[in-house]
Amino acid sequence: MATETRKLVILTEGQSEPITAKTAVSVLRYRPEEVVALIDSTQVGKTTDQVLAVGGKTPFVASLKETKGADALMIGIAPAGGKLPEAWRKIVLEALEKGMDVVSGLHQFLSDDAEFVAAAEKHNANLIDVRQNSERDVANWEGVSEDCLRIHAVGQDCCVGKMVVCIELDQAMKRQGVDSKFVATGQTGILVEGDGCPIDCVVSDFISGAAEKLVLANQHHDVMFIEGQGSLAHPRYSAVTLGLLHGCRPHGMILCYEVGRTSVSHMQQVPLKSLAELRDTYEHVAGLMLPSKVIGVAMNSRLVTAEEAEKERERVRAELGVPVCDVIRHGPDDLIEAVINLRQQLVKQ
Amino acid sequence: MATETRKLVILTEGQSEPITAKTAVSVLRYRPEEVVALIDSTQVGKTTDQVLAVGGKTPFVASLKETKGADALMIGIAPAGGKLPEAWRKIVLEALEKGMDVVSGLHQFLSDDAEFVAAAEKHNANLIDVRQNSERDVANWEGVSEDCLRIHAVGQDCCVGKMVVCIELDQAMKRQGVDSKFVATGQTGILVEGDGCPIDCVVSDFISGAAEKLVLANQHHDVMFIEGQGSLAHPRYSAVTLGLLHGCRPHGMILCYEVGRTSVSHMQQVPLKSLAELRDTYEHVAGLMLPSKVIGVAMNSRLVTAEEAEKERERVRAELGVPVCDVIRHGPDDLIEAVINLRQQLVKQ
Repeated sequence: MATETRKLVILTEGQSEPITAKTAVSVLRYRPEEVVALIDSTQVGKTTDQVLAVGGKTPFVASLKETKGADALMIGIAPAGGKLPEAWRKIVLEALEKGMDVVSGLHQFLSDDAEFVAAAEKHNANLIDVRQNSERDVANWEGVSEDCLRIHAVGQDCCVGKMVVCIELDQAMKRQGVDSKFVATGQTGILVEGDGCPIDCVVSDFISGAAEKLVLANQHHDVMFIEGQGSLAHPRYSAVTLGLLHGCRPHGMILCYEVGRTSVSHMQQVPLKSLAELRDTYEHVAGLMLPSKVIGVAMNSRLVTAEEAEKERERVRAELGVPVCDVIRHGPDDLIEAVINLRQQLVKQ
Repeated sequence: MATETRKLVILTEGQSEPITAKTAVSVLRYRPEEVVALIDSTQVGKTTDQVLAVGGKTPFVASLKETKGADALMIGIAPAGGKLPEAWRKIVLEALEKGMDVVSGLHQFLSDDAEFVAAAEKHNANLIDVRQNSERDVANWEGVSEDCLRIHAVGQDCCVGKMVVCIELDQAMKRQGVDSKFVATGQTGILVEGDGCPIDCVVSDFISGAAEKLVLANQHHDVMFIEGQGSLAHPRYSAVTLGLLHGCRPHGMILCYEVGRTSVSHMQQVPLKSLAELRDTYEHVAGLMLPSKVIGVAMNSRLVTAEEAEKERERVRAELGVPVCDVIRHGPDDLIEAVINLRQQLVKQ
């Protein structure tokens, strides 16, 4: 779907914050040529670069009427629970009435809504629910090749940048001439990569089976970077994290976190576990299926200065004894080296 | 649903083994007055007691024609993947044509099948899919009371008897006059108890939220025994196990296993982890949310002699240092004592 060239208008009305609008941010970062404008009447006159630090001069506009040449409207947020804000219904309907497709990564499927379905049919438009899936197979541990290196991004929390880390590492490996693949497991990653599985929307009994299928489908590459979800210590989403971890059985993990965050995303009453405790937890729990180590740490330092980031990098490197970098601020070289080292170790075995 | 009195015929054609037919076995054990007969043409002439060691003189018959006075047909198996055997379609249709309801705990919903739906409508019968749910709420950690003791059965594997352990402990507590509740989390438990949530069929993002809702709905009791699912070390179902564990945040856990089993259920290539390793894993992983200990071990010794069971009981008691019993063979007293001790400890804190 997302591999075709589209001209998108992205809807983030009143919610143009980097974390809330993470779908918009990632599409702007990795598919900027597809984005015509963002709709947010509270940001009119600004560029996405000013508000979200990505996307260059892409403008904010107040409504669909002020956009030209777009063929699809994309829902640009990823809220907990995945529901469409009620006030956005009329904008979705307006897009459908113009014959535009509507692309959504929400849990609440547009295609389950009778009014949207009727409007889409009437105006020959498509409702594209990226999270919709019919996964109904359990994991079997059959046919998995050990020739393709499986690297999995895991997190201290959700919304820390696991997807960005995987994409940046994948692109860096490709630049070195390695046959690498970014394996998307969330709606935003799927929109960027054009394939993948919306793993958090799979029925629980089949999540590891769905993850295993992603491995089987992509193991003709030499390396895969499998996007992680949530955190083993997240009160809401740990099941998603574990089903994916056990389904993909990584050879190595990269632990991702955001500098300065102290409590679980959207649950301020729950303090985050330390990186060291989580490193131990991930290694122990992954090891129930296949021995796996945290080979590096990806820090997301967007909220601190370069100097603070450097200090934190040193601190974590000393504490955990593995390479640490912010793939956006520092580039991915230190983590790429860790991946190449792991690959060489495994080849020798 | 299951709290009404029904007269059931249970379908186990060609699959009347204690584990495969675990839904049938549990309904026979805990709701024997509701079961008219089992359909399995390979067992005709035998009683369920002879074949499945439960249900007394309940007969096996070859077909629906040989049953009288039943008002519902129940699918009596719980296969991996949860699909209806193709050959059973005509028996389901035959029941619907007689105006009987059909009750199923399969993942493949009867009510998604156009032919079944048409037959049910025509003959005024009901299709009851116990696993169907529309859970769409995340966990919030709000409103959970610490006055109700939460005990959770966890397992070395699936199909080891976690549900039976919870029901037996619940009944024993009630006999002591304690306001206790069995909290069902699987299709069979729901059929026995009349309420609960089919947790393995919930969309992954919402499994902990669904488990938390079960806690909120039942915490007016003094003690709840929450049925566990799968195992943290099960390659297929660990996500279900963890989502439930983190959603219900137990005060104490009972570790369940089957004596003599050495490999994961339906995955002979995967050896089971030791009880000691799993005890440590459950305590570590549960502790990411709330400190929790394994307070006892429930052994399922159905495949060994009384003497072998006694030896094994001593061995595990010595190794793990907690009470051990087979709730069917020995009765639940040792585990009940462990639960009461934990309750007293928590009250003192």
